Amino acid sequence: MSSITIKQLAYELNLSAATVSRALSDSYEISAATKQKVWDLAKKLNYEPNPSASTLRSHKSKTLAVIVPEIANNFFSQAINGIEEVSRQHGYHVLIYQTHDNSETEAAFIKSLLSGRVDGVLISVSSETGNSNHFADLNKNIPVVFFDRALEDIDAVKITTNDYESAYLATEHLIECGCNKIGYLFALNNLTAGKKRLSGYKDALLSNNIAYNENLVVICGKEESQNYSQIKDLLITNRPDGIISSIEELVLPCYAICRELNINIPDDLKIVSFSNLKTAPFLNPSLTTITQPAFEIGETAATLILKLLNNKQVDTGEDVVLKSALIKRGSTAV
Amino acid sequence: MSSITIKQLAYELNLSAATVSRALSDSYEISAATKQKVWDLAKKLNYEPNPSASTLRSHKSKTLAVIVPEIANNFFSQAINGIEEVSRQHGYHVLIYQTHDNSETEAAFIKSLLSGRVDGVLISVSSETGNSNHFADLNKNIPVVFFDRALEDIDAVKITTNDYESAYLATEHLIECGCNKIGYLFALNNLTAGKKRLSGYKDALLSNNIAYNENLVVICGKEESQNYSQIKDLLITNRPDGIISSIEELVLPCYAICRELNINIPDDLKIVSFSNLKTAPFLNPSLTTITQPAFEIGETAATLILKLLNNKQVDTGEDVVLKSALIKRGSTAV
Repeated sequence: MSSITIKQLAYELNLSAATVSRALSDSYEISAATKQKVWDLAKKLNYEPNPSASTLRSHKSKTLAVIVPEIANNFFSQAINGIEEVSRQHGYHVLIYQTHDNSETEAAFIKSLLSGRVDGVLISVSSETGNSNHFADLNKNIPVVFFDRALEDIDAVKITTNDYESAYLATEHLIECGCNKIGYLFALNNLTAGKKRLSGYKDALLSNNIAYNENLVVICGKEESQNYSQIKDLLITNRPDGIISSIEELVLPCYAICRELNINIPDDLKIVSFSNLKTAPFLNPSLTTITQPAFEIGETAATLILKLLNNKQVDTGEDVVLKSALIKRGSTAV
Repeated sequence: MSSITIKQLAYELNLSAATVSRALSDSYEISAATKQKVWDLAKKLNYEPNPSASTLRSHKSKTLAVIVPEIANNFFSQAINGIEEVSRQHGYHVLIYQTHDNSETEAAFIKSLLSGRVDGVLISVSSETGNSNHFADLNKNIPVVFFDRALEDIDAVKITTNDYESAYLATEHLIECGCNKIGYLFALNNLTAGKKRLSGYKDALLSNNIAYNENLVVICGKEESQNYSQIKDLLITNRPDGIISSIEELVLPCYAICRELNINIPDDLKIVSFSNLKTAPFLNPSLTTITQPAFEIGETAATLILKLLNNKQVDTGEDVVLKSALIKRGSTAV
């Protein structure tokens, strides 16, 4: 029997024991060159892993955490279903955390997860979260995958959709339907997704020789009543002939305000919304949507985190970008 | 300093140490008479708790688990929001588990929770779960509160709504609107809630001299496509003039089938559904609903579990029953 230990390998190679240990378990954190050096020496010296230590190291909770802003949102509930589908196939449980778009709640969850309660974290960040400060420790210790609402300043795997292109196409669709005064309900203004959607809208206007008018942009936040009164104000004082809602939560208020003000959709006002609402085809009128491939996003996110958990290399530099679909319905009929 | 221990108190009183310990912490599991005996002797012998042991005993995760069939359901997402609201005020985190109405998944979650990951469990049971077998160990070890979908054969705190009365009133509403051939979409047939809803429907028919006809009752399960074809079959072969949907998930299929078959709602068919859909007022036509006080159910469930966690007595014999509201809209207009 070999009596070579990880410490001895580390000493011989002038590496830390932790690095050798990770190299032996084929961790993605260790470079291919270092792994090769470690494996070569281990083979040469007939290193045999200590089985009980190995069991201890592989003692996993077999649980993933999913952190989302809201579960009462069809995009997130469908994405979670996709995550669960893949997780279940690999024997993982899924715990769901809801931040209600509160950055403090999110930070508190992250802190509680550092104790090793779960093996990996899938997160769609709160709209209040402007930087990755509270993710730094987590990302060092536990595999993290961001989906849909990601942060720019963190080196992690990110699954997003073609936000820029989707908003661009939605704007062009409204222009094709005859709109030339298009309002924009701007949410997620801290996040890449929100910024890209706004850029798509702006660029589509410019390409069609329509001047961008910031008075037609309503910056929406977490306060439902404030969003409601701001949108109503736009429709009363500076009525657009089309509206793009950058999140699902703003579209029912639009319908309610139009009823209140006797504005006919689509004759007086056409509406497109980013939305995975199951009821979209049954609304009065049915709603034209930019529908994200929510279930597929969840599946992809789960597949990638399971790869990370198996110490496989995942290139964090290259985001996975899936495509949304523009589904034309009654709210933009001509 | 006193040197009296829990063991000595237990020996003197001929009780187990565990019972004395629970009595000293005012646990709801110990009778008032036993507690009094323990407290009297502890006082007489100047018993002082060991502070480090007490810290150990009170080492809590400050986390509650909520287990629901589906998060993509407005009733459950609103109930979870109510649970979170109360939990947050008391410094508790909430973990959400989704069973997809699968009894095995539910049992696996329950088993994983026995390890003490959470301090308490709030659950709305899967529609597949016919008895309380897999809850028995949990209920002995961790406070459990059932909400909405409860089981009859378990002695635990239960928060439900007036299911019988709601279905009764919905049926009478359809009769008042002129219906006399009322179909019933029967879900949750394993659960008390489902059985009570069906009874309310039957009794309202009888009170109005309409014979109960089992051919108008569609037993719906988890298979969406099967539910769809069964409902369609009813509407083709034995068309009712009114329908009561006993769960929210069945109402969009009804709308879709009516479109497919060119059945006008409400002229040809009136529809009422148990539903907390936010889009109900904006559907085409707007949907008459039996709306459960979901947020309040969640708040009540959380308040009661926190009472249990503080070792306060909660009478498990008496269920809390909250009232739903019948909200009349376009789908039952005359």
